[in-house]
Amino acid sequence: MAIPRIGIGMDSSVTPVRHGGLSLVQTTDFFYPLVDDPYMMGKIACANVLSDLYAMGVTDCDNMLMLLGVSTKMTEKERDVVVPLIMRGFKDSALEAGTTVTGGQTVVNPWCTIGGVATTVCQPNEYIVPDNAVVGDVLVLTKPLGTQVAVNAHQWLDQPDRWNRIKLVVSEEDVRKGYQRAMDSMARLNRTAARLMHKYNAHGATDVTGFGLLGHAQNLAKHQKNEVSFVIHNLPVISKMAAVAKACGNMFQLLQGHSAETSGGLLICLPREQAAAYCKDIEKQEGYQAWIIGIVEKGLRTARIIDKPRVIEVPAKEKDGELW
Amino acid sequence: MAIPRIGIGMDSSVTPVRHGGLSLVQTTDFFYPLVDDPYMMGKIACANVLSDLYAMGVTDCDNMLMLLGVSTKMTEKERDVVVPLIMRGFKDSALEAGTTVTGGQTVVNPWCTIGGVATTVCQPNEYIVPDNAVVGDVLVLTKPLGTQVAVNAHQWLDQPDRWNRIKLVVSEEDVRKGYQRAMDSMARLNRTAARLMHKYNAHGATDVTGFGLLGHAQNLAKHQKNEVSFVIHNLPVISKMAAVAKACGNMFQLLQGHSAETSGGLLICLPREQAAAYCKDIEKQEGYQAWIIGIVEKGLRTARIIDKPRVIEVPAKEKDGELW
Repeated sequence: MAIPRIGIGMDSSVTPVRHGGLSLVQTTDFFYPLVDDPYMMGKIACANVLSDLYAMGVTDCDNMLMLLGVSTKMTEKERDVVVPLIMRGFKDSALEAGTTVTGGQTVVNPWCTIGGVATTVCQPNEYIVPDNAVVGDVLVLTKPLGTQVAVNAHQWLDQPDRWNRIKLVVSEEDVRKGYQRAMDSMARLNRTAARLMHKYNAHGATDVTGFGLLGHAQNLAKHQKNEVSFVIHNLPVISKMAAVAKACGNMFQLLQGHSAETSGGLLICLPREQAAAYCKDIEKQEGYQAWIIGIVEKGLRTARIIDKPRVIEVPAKEKDGELW
Repeated sequence: MAIPRIGIGMDSSVTPVRHGGLSLVQTTDFFYPLVDDPYMMGKIACANVLSDLYAMGVTDCDNMLMLLGVSTKMTEKERDVVVPLIMRGFKDSALEAGTTVTGGQTVVNPWCTIGGVATTVCQPNEYIVPDNAVVGDVLVLTKPLGTQVAVNAHQWLDQPDRWNRIKLVVSEEDVRKGYQRAMDSMARLNRTAARLMHKYNAHGATDVTGFGLLGHAQNLAKHQKNEVSFVIHNLPVISKMAAVAKACGNMFQLLQGHSAETSGGLLICLPREQAAAYCKDIEKQEGYQAWIIGIVEKGLRTARIIDKPRVIEVPAKEKDGELW
């Protein structure tokens, strides 16, 4: 859904505090459930909130709060099963991130919502203000696009009229694999990606979420100190999801960069000579690819995707011998 | 509505951070609109969030985030009028509290919700862990009870079947005055109350909200280090609202201590010899009364209201020559 942030154009707010030259880096986000596994939903929501800190290069979160809107339409029994699972997923993800959930708030509402708050107190060298891109930098993306397409296609398996529109370009198995890959990707933390931003001297980053790749690239471009623009050449997409998106006409606008992502990757401006090493390092540490998707040129702080971008099909991956 | 907090029984979470012996004191709260003035609703929501910090004796908030759920049932025109007013009220209240709103999140939802996050980074002497009540302390309350009763009675002016149940005990003017008094009270910050907790050596406090006076008193009692119990003798109530509550049978349970309050006062454990001075000082500074409502006895960490508590009628007040 629409996610207009109040205030300035960064993923987290940075506020000086009254002590020791420290700053409070803080973010909040909440949205609606989009996968049918409550535990995974909790993990995704947590990863999604933390991602705004990671986009600022912050790697250590000091505290999290959880925000839950429980649906009035659930039976008591459904609530008793679903809510603890969501909470467990959220807490497990926080644990994986080296932080804890110390509080939160739950209300009831016709629609289920889930989200949280992530806060850290840090020294100026712990975060990277995302405004320092220079001509010659390249753009790296750390997760494939297409989560929304994959989630929708998976829902359509049970809706014949929808399914008929895409069944010529994709098999049921492709859709199930794409959905698993999307869940895995959305639940994955951008923490290593953030850590490596420091090692490879990143000039700024954002995370790709509700406004799609291009929307977030444009927002990042707008806030640069230098006269630069971003040009995107490559679109890494979860396998087969580009074909699904095309078969749906203008609905997703995936190749135009407008398809919403949930808990997407970091889009990072890196010095050209460091970018390949960054991608190699993250793959070595996590077993996930990252891609150089574009360049930083002289320009008036805009972003665009070239006319016929190269679509990189990102396959379901082998992990622990199991197909994801 | 039900507000089960995740985690420990304090109004805010306290988390040590990695720098300089500092702690992160943080809280979040959101609920549903309850007054028909969007600007006042914004102020009340902000005061209500901050109140959890003030209950811990924290007087300076470093940062706020706003959480808005905009109703799907509003027309675009309604949204364009109402949402900016709510946001302005919230921000103005934050300004009054010496803090700023640097971010937030907005989603749509069938039901409107409003709330926020308040965070401060502070030294150990800046907050008061609410677990230090001793036998002989007294309990002070800084705002009158009855906000929920007043808000409901005001809605009933337009509902003849409801109004008929209470019109024998209250006039329309009483209801309008009570409603104004409730709005004024809910929008008032507990900041001075928090500041004076330090001056008069408070042993702990909580704020009175969704669980009513007794619910919050019981929660506070449960977390005491010493073997103490709280006994409440006096109930300050917005003028006429005790009569309204009685006329409604068991609906509110106001005199039993169970009527929910929004952005209620602080319930504070103070040394007996300091309590009167505390009440005098807050009235001098703010022009609002506070009341000694009970005592701390030896006991097993429970709280109760005596059989026939004295109801203190709290009149609408004169302020700037205008009747509130």
